[in-house]
Amino acid sequence: MFHGLADVVVMDSPSRAHFLENLKPGGKYAGIVGTYRHNVSADHIGIFDKEIVDALAAAGLKWIAHNGAGYDQIDVAACKEKGIIVSNTPGAVDDATATTALYLMISALRQYSKAERDARAGLWKSQLESGNAHDLTGRTLAILGLGGIGMRLAELAHAFPMRIVYHNRGKVEDTPEWCEYFPAEKLDEMLAQTDVLSVHVPLRKDTEGLVGESMIRKLKKGAVIVNTARGKVIDEEAMIRALEDGHLGAIGLDVYPDEPKINPRFFDFPNATLLPHMGTETCDSQKKMEIRALTNLSDFLTKGKGNDIVPELV
Amino acid sequence: MFHGLADVVVMDSPSRAHFLENLKPGGKYAGIVGTYRHNVSADHIGIFDKEIVDALAAAGLKWIAHNGAGYDQIDVAACKEKGIIVSNTPGAVDDATATTALYLMISALRQYSKAERDARAGLWKSQLESGNAHDLTGRTLAILGLGGIGMRLAELAHAFPMRIVYHNRGKVEDTPEWCEYFPAEKLDEMLAQTDVLSVHVPLRKDTEGLVGESMIRKLKKGAVIVNTARGKVIDEEAMIRALEDGHLGAIGLDVYPDEPKINPRFFDFPNATLLPHMGTETCDSQKKMEIRALTNLSDFLTKGKGNDIVPELV
Repeated sequence: MFHGLADVVVMDSPSRAHFLENLKPGGKYAGIVGTYRHNVSADHIGIFDKEIVDALAAAGLKWIAHNGAGYDQIDVAACKEKGIIVSNTPGAVDDATATTALYLMISALRQYSKAERDARAGLWKSQLESGNAHDLTGRTLAILGLGGIGMRLAELAHAFPMRIVYHNRGKVEDTPEWCEYFPAEKLDEMLAQTDVLSVHVPLRKDTEGLVGESMIRKLKKGAVIVNTARGKVIDEEAMIRALEDGHLGAIGLDVYPDEPKINPRFFDFPNATLLPHMGTETCDSQKKMEIRALTNLSDFLTKGKGNDIVPELV
Repeated sequence: MFHGLADVVVMDSPSRAHFLENLKPGGKYAGIVGTYRHNVSADHIGIFDKEIVDALAAAGLKWIAHNGAGYDQIDVAACKEKGIIVSNTPGAVDDATATTALYLMISALRQYSKAERDARAGLWKSQLESGNAHDLTGRTLAILGLGGIGMRLAELAHAFPMRIVYHNRGKVEDTPEWCEYFPAEKLDEMLAQTDVLSVHVPLRKDTEGLVGESMIRKLKKGAVIVNTARGKVIDEEAMIRALEDGHLGAIGLDVYPDEPKINPRFFDFPNATLLPHMGTETCDSQKKMEIRALTNLSDFLTKGKGNDIVPELV
C-alpha cells in the first residue's frame, strides 16, 4: 500500500525512552511524516500524551492515523497546538461494537452469564429464577450518544422490537421515526422509562463520570446498564452501590476505567456480564479498521489530506 | 380462571407410584377430565409415557394442556389410542427461544463465552485471537426447521443483515423474499454455504440424530452449530468429533440429550457456549405460556375443545 510512496519504518521500541530517543535526528524514526497508530503500542511506549506528541512534532510528524473509533489515548489538544492532524476509524467499528452491546443486553436481561457459570459448575439452572429474567421485546432501550454505534444498536434492537429512545446534545438528523429524542431538559423523563441504558459517548473531559450517582438513581428500579464505550464514562463506585442495593437489575460491561484491570468487586455480582474489551475483536472489523486507517494515511501522503479527521481538529 | 368451572386438584404426588395409585377410584385424582402439565412434574412422577397415559385415560382424562412448545415428554401415540387430546403452547415461546439462539450465535461467532471466562480468570483477552472471531453481518444463517421460533430468529438475524436460508420438509408459505428455501434434494448445497446452522425441529423418532456425522461434515469448515430445540436432534458424539478435529468452529447449546446432565467433554472446548436450557426462562414467556395452556384447558371445559392441538392429533 505504501510501496513507492514512502519509507515504512516499523515501530518496535521496547520502551518510551527508546522511542523518544529514536525520534531525534539520526534516530530510526527521524524524519517521520505520518504514523499509523494502534492501541497496542501503549503497552510499550505508553499513550500518545503531550510528551510523545511534542517529540513527534519535533521530528516532523503531520498525521496520526489512529486505528480505532475511540482516540482518548491521544492528546488531541497537544496535536492541535503542534499542527498535527489525527484521524480515526469511525463506521468501521459500528457493527462489531453494536453487536457486543446487543449481546451484553441479552445476557443481562436473561441472566445468561450466571446461567453458563452455573451450568459449568454442575448446578444446571437450580440457582436461577425466571422471575429475574426478561424478554427484550417491548422493553425500552435508552441510547446515550446516538452516533454510528448507537444507531446500529438501535436498528438491531428495533428488530425485536424494543422501544428506542436516545439522548444526545442535539437531535440527530435523518433518524427513523421510531427513535425518540430526549433533549437535556427531558433527560430525567427518559431515564425514568428506561429498562436498558446503553452508553455510546466518547471519553472526553466533559463525559468522564457522566453516568454518575444522579443519572443512575433516576433510572427505573431494576434497570440494566450496558457499556461498550469507555469505562471512565461511568462512575464505577456509583454503579457498584446501585448493584449492591438492587437499584440496578444487572450490568453488561465490555470496558473498564483501568483496563486490563477489572474491579474484582464486579466478580461478586451474579448479575454482571463482563467481557474483556471485545467490542471490535473480529477479523472482519480489524481488517476494515486497518484498511481505513492506512487509507487515511496514504491519502495524506498522496493528496495532502485524509478522511476521518477527529471533530476537534476539523 | 377455573372458579365455578371445575374442581382444581393440585398434583403434589411425590412419586409415580403415588400418582398412579391416586388416579384409581377413590384416589384424589379420580374423575380427572383435564390436566395442566408442566415439565417439572417429571421430576416427581416421570414423563407422560404409556403407563401414565393409560392410567389417566382410565381415570377419565380427555385433555392434556401442556405448558411448552416441545411435547416430547408426552407419548402422543398412546394419547391418540385412548382418545386424549394434547395441546401445547406454540408461539408463546418463539420470542424468548429465538433470542436465546441469537445470543448463542453471537457468543459462538465472537468467542464471548471464553472471553468472559478468561476475563474472570484474570487473563483479560491475552488468550484470544481476533482471527477466530467473526461479525454476523453478511454471514449465512441456515435454519433447520422454519417454524415460529426459526422464523423469529430469521427476523432478528435479518436485521444485521445475515443471509437467511432454511430447510424444511416443505416450503413455508408467506415467508419474506429474503428467506431462501432449500428442499431435501438441495440440502447439501445449503450446508456447504452455511456459516451458522441453527436447529429448530421438534424431537420425534424421525428427527432423533438428524444432525449427524453426514450433515455435520457437509457444513462449511469452521461453521457454527446452535441448538435451542432438543439435544437428541443432534448426534452428540459426531458433534464432539467435529469440534475435536476443527471441522466445527464453535457451538452454542441450550439443550442436551440427557438433561440436566451436560456431557463434561463440552467443558474442554474453548469455543463452546453452554446454557442450561434457558430458552423460555423469562417471566414474560412463562406467563404467556401459562395463560395459553390454561386457556386451552378452560376452552376444553367450556366449549368442548381448546386450541393448539398438537399436529399428530389434529
